[in-house]
Amino acid sequence: MSIKLGKNTYGKNAVNLSKIIRHPDYHEFRQISVNVILEGDFETAHTIGDNSKLLPTDTQKNTVYALAKEHFVSSIEAFGLYLANYFASNNPQVSQVRIELTEHSWTRMRFNGTIHPHAYCSGGNEKHTATIVQNKNGIEVTTGITDLLILKTTDSGFERYIKDQYTTLKETSDRIFATQCEVSWVYNSSKILFVELFNGIRTTLLQTFADHHSLSVQHTLYAMGEAVLNKFAVVNEISLKMPNKHHILFNLEQFGMDNKNDVFIATDEPFGYITGTIVRE
Amino acid sequence: MSIKLGKNTYGKNAVNLSKIIRHPDYHEFRQISVNVILEGDFETAHTIGDNSKLLPTDTQKNTVYALAKEHFVSSIEAFGLYLANYFASNNPQVSQVRIELTEHSWTRMRFNGTIHPHAYCSGGNEKHTATIVQNKNGIEVTTGITDLLILKTTDSGFERYIKDQYTTLKETSDRIFATQCEVSWVYNSSKILFVELFNGIRTTLLQTFADHHSLSVQHTLYAMGEAVLNKFAVVNEISLKMPNKHHILFNLEQFGMDNKNDVFIATDEPFGYITGTIVRE
Amino acid sequence: MSIKLGKNTYGKNAVNLSKIIRHPDYHEFRQISVNVILEGDFETAHTIGDNSKLLPTDTQKNTVYALAKEHFVSSIEAFGLYLANYFASNNPQVSQVRIELTEHSWTRMRFNGTIHPHAYCSGGNEKHTATIVQNKNGIEVTTGITDLLILKTTDSGFERYIKDQYTTLKETSDRIFATQCEVSWVYNSSKILFVELFNGIRTTLLQTFADHHSLSVQHTLYAMGEAVLNKFAVVNEISLKMPNKHHILFNLEQFGMDNKNDVFIATDEPFGYITGTIVRE
Amino acid sequence: MSIKLGKNTYGKNAVNLSKIIRHPDYHEFRQISVNVILEGDFETAHTIGDNSKLLPTDTQKNTVYALAKEHFVSSIEAFGLYLANYFASNNPQVSQVRIELTEHSWTRMRFNGTIHPHAYCSGGNEKHTATIVQNKNGIEVTTGITDLLILKTTDSGFERYIKDQYTTLKETSDRIFATQCEVSWVYNSSKILFVELFNGIRTTLLQTFADHHSLSVQHTLYAMGEAVLNKFAVVNEISLKMPNKHHILFNLEQFGMDNKNDVFIATDEPFGYITGTIVRE
Repeated sequence: MSIKLGKNTYGKNAVNLSKIIRHPDYHEFRQISVNVILEGDFETAHTIGDNSKLLPTDTQKNTVYALAKEHFVSSIEAFGLYLANYFASNNPQVSQVRIELTEHSWTRMRFNGTIHPHAYCSGGNEKHTATIVQNKNGIEVTTGITDLLILKTTDSGFERYIKDQYTTLKETSDRIFATQCEVSWVYNSSKILFVELFNGIRTTLLQTFADHHSLSVQHTLYAMGEAVLNKFAVVNEISLKMPNKHHILFNLEQFGMDNKNDVFIATDEPFGYITGTIVRE
Repeated sequence: MSIKLGKNTYGKNAVNLSKIIRHPDYHEFRQISVNVILEGDFETAHTIGDNSKLLPTDTQKNTVYALAKEHFVSSIEAFGLYLANYFASNNPQVSQVRIELTEHSWTRMRFNGTIHPHAYCSGGNEKHTATIVQNKNGIEVTTGITDLLILKTTDSGFERYIKDQYTTLKETSDRIFATQCEVSWVYNSSKILFVELFNGIRTTLLQTFADHHSLSVQHTLYAMGEAVLNKFAVVNEISLKMPNKHHILFNLEQFGMDNKNDVFIATDEPFGYITGTIVRE
Repeated sequence: MSIKLGKNTYGKNAVNLSKIIRHPDYHEFRQISVNVILEGDFETAHTIGDNSKLLPTDTQKNTVYALAKEHFVSSIEAFGLYLANYFASNNPQVSQVRIELTEHSWTRMRFNGTIHPHAYCSGGNEKHTATIVQNKNGIEVTTGITDLLILKTTDSGFERYIKDQYTTLKETSDRIFATQCEVSWVYNSSKILFVELFNGIRTTLLQTFADHHSLSVQHTLYAMGEAVLNKFAVVNEISLKMPNKHHILFNLEQFGMDNKNDVFIATDEPFGYITGTIVRE
Repeated sequence: MSIKLGKNTYGKNAVNLSKIIRHPDYHEFRQISVNVILEGDFETAHTIGDNSKLLPTDTQKNTVYALAKEHFVSSIEAFGLYLANYFASNNPQVSQVRIELTEHSWTRMRFNGTIHPHAYCSGGNEKHTATIVQNKNGIEVTTGITDLLILKTTDSGFERYIKDQYTTLKETSDRIFATQCEVSWVYNSSKILFVELFNGIRTTLLQTFADHHSLSVQHTLYAMGEAVLNKFAVVNEISLKMPNKHHILFNLEQFGMDNKNDVFIATDEPFGYITGTIVRE
């Protein structure tokens, strides 16, 4: 059996870029991180060190900054589409361009009901993500949210599960449900209103989480995905990753006290990790 | 010269605790992390392994959870004061109790103008902190904010500084000013309205940052501290740590383009680090 | 089009476990982190909240600790195989068990040439990993290394690559090559000498990296993978992820000095990211 | 009461620098991170934005790289002393220079007993640190170790401590003792053999930890510090911070099994945190 190169990719990651877009009455501040990931005819680069088909990752980085000047003016999806097409059009040796973008959230400061024209507070860890894949089959846009840390203090339980010799978990009809959610959904088009869709889908996810009578993480995960597919016809499928940020009842009974579901140990590890994709048939 | 024990401390750190406080119409969710730090008569514990004066850190942890049941009902400062006094009163071998508390920010979800009764989103990385120190001299309360990530896109410059043989920085009258601020201030009393004061001081810090015509980080740091001391007589002194989160102009000129202060490289390291305490004379 | 559940998984992650194995003349200390990831007949768990086929992740965690007592006695691969088979055999509703194990490295202290019987130093960030997948097709064992931080100061260059309008990188025949490598390889059997193979493959990877005349990251990545496949017939394929930890020449010329390839800026971001799988035909 | 500037500092942090020192038969690779921290006459910089006494942190960074060319040739202490003196001598407005250096550990690869001339593996997380403080009182050199992760599986207990109503910890004469130690010691001279001393002190710390019959963390902390002061007359005082990395017995008894001190839950939080300074009288 001979040895050969299988799947391979390369590109510049963590191209951290910020931009001020100056509007008549305020400054729009944007901060993103971009990954460029190329596939293509790179076999001899690997096997004999022939770099003649390699666009250096340093050049990719320069390209992202240079193109941001004119083309990062609205959604990260739109900028990603431009970048993907740029790299695909200018590099015949490349068979697939994948652009991953993560946008940091910044919120304009507000004092006494007035929004400040150029001062911002961080909007937190939650980030808007987008992935553009362009190859001979076409273009696919995936949008998402990472580090979406959400919690409900009630309307969540976990009962009637399998018991075996190693079971110690007690059934409960009332527990905290907290998760640092990662969600992504695939659009069926690249010519859509990305900003409006993002906001609508995010609200649908949050509202479903908030109002769902949760019998398990799986149960709520599915409900959230289903709600998005029901409401947004442009979404082909949606994937959710829901690590369970456990809040465990502290044993107050050992001190003669009563824990009426009010004092908890907040833990990071170990954690239940639930993932699922909801699709259209 | 003989060898002896100098300053020493011990205690349980990172006691991660969450609590649901049930109000008639909504659930208040709180999440904090508590450090207990004791000083006292622990010389023989070190020199001969005599543990008879050591309250185990495990017991400290249990105590924090147990006391949270009845006594963590309002501000972290109030809970910290209770904890400090509890440990001081019950441990004659302890000469100083230091309680450090960090509160994670959670925001109730809001849909169509209605606040949800029990669903929350993370309020981001910014955290409210409090440190209570109780010893024979009395009680001191220090409140603060960590990870306060703020930014202004203009009204900030840096000019007329020292130049020497290693100077390459260009003077500018218009630059991004971004910092992940850590602020703490010392109150002159422990019987004050902690929640209202915190909100007022935070707003004063932000508004000063936003509106200040900044000639340097030092200049704005001082203005922020001075504004708090001017407005809040209960604050004795205030300390600010302001790492400069540099946004560096990307060199577009090398590609025949013009960077009109709009495309930046967002960097984490290295970073300028400015610290200062503003006091009353 | 109707909506339905697609691929889904769940399980307990980050089950952090340590064990002392007492040998006649020394204590063997082991520390691992285990993820359990199950697939199976969980549709109604998602769609109607029927938990009757869910083995709680809490029980999975208990099972890992309980089985470690008798069955974590040699390699992590062997323990993983036992766990995978245990969950598969006892849960007919499960169609696939995936066990991911990460072992922290601990090294016995050595003084004057004598190895201490029970005192350890951390062996660093580099970790031995193993993934066991058991389903109806059989069992697959993948072993790997993460956080393998390696560097060579010379015998590495990057030249004759594509130049375009955004190229600023200078060609060099002598640069630092540093990477925080993640490697994993698939065995063609589960009845092999895991510990000996791991050590042999790790040495082969390091030696190839050290001695290779590198014309690019891709070139060395392929050489490392090829060397393993050439030497170890039990390895079916090998994948390497090689983020380029750039050490960039500092511009000393601007100060009238000469940088003879000796003073560098060590950077984390952005970074080139090269990945590749080497397979048998 | 008027308001004024209290203690303040500024400087560039995280100046990440690597260097190749070419010896006849091998390449020495060094990687450090440097913080420059200045105090001085900076009141008007704060109060009126007068930058005329500010050496920009960007220039400080350039200076570190430029001086590394000729002056970073042996220990980090020696380079730090040079930097401190350089900034002090060239900046009359500065009353104190503090240089903090952290050296990353790199180990030359070894194959079949032969050390490779230019290939390195990371030496792990443990780092050698040094702090130089130069002011009108003179120069003080503090050396240390951070992230020294060490563990012993036995010869450690914790008994006969205070019990109260919140005690649940069980006494034990045999427990795992693990800590991620941070140690620093102050020399009484700046004209000493820094490399040899560092190695000797590190070995003394490890050997004392390994061989000490530990009755508590405090007990071992003191023994480690005392051993260094006893053996190294040039050390004036030594400080140790020892977070307790708890390995907690897993409750196997609930499953009818016996945990003979062999299966543990490895936890990060909460953690006991013990700090102490050992001085000469």
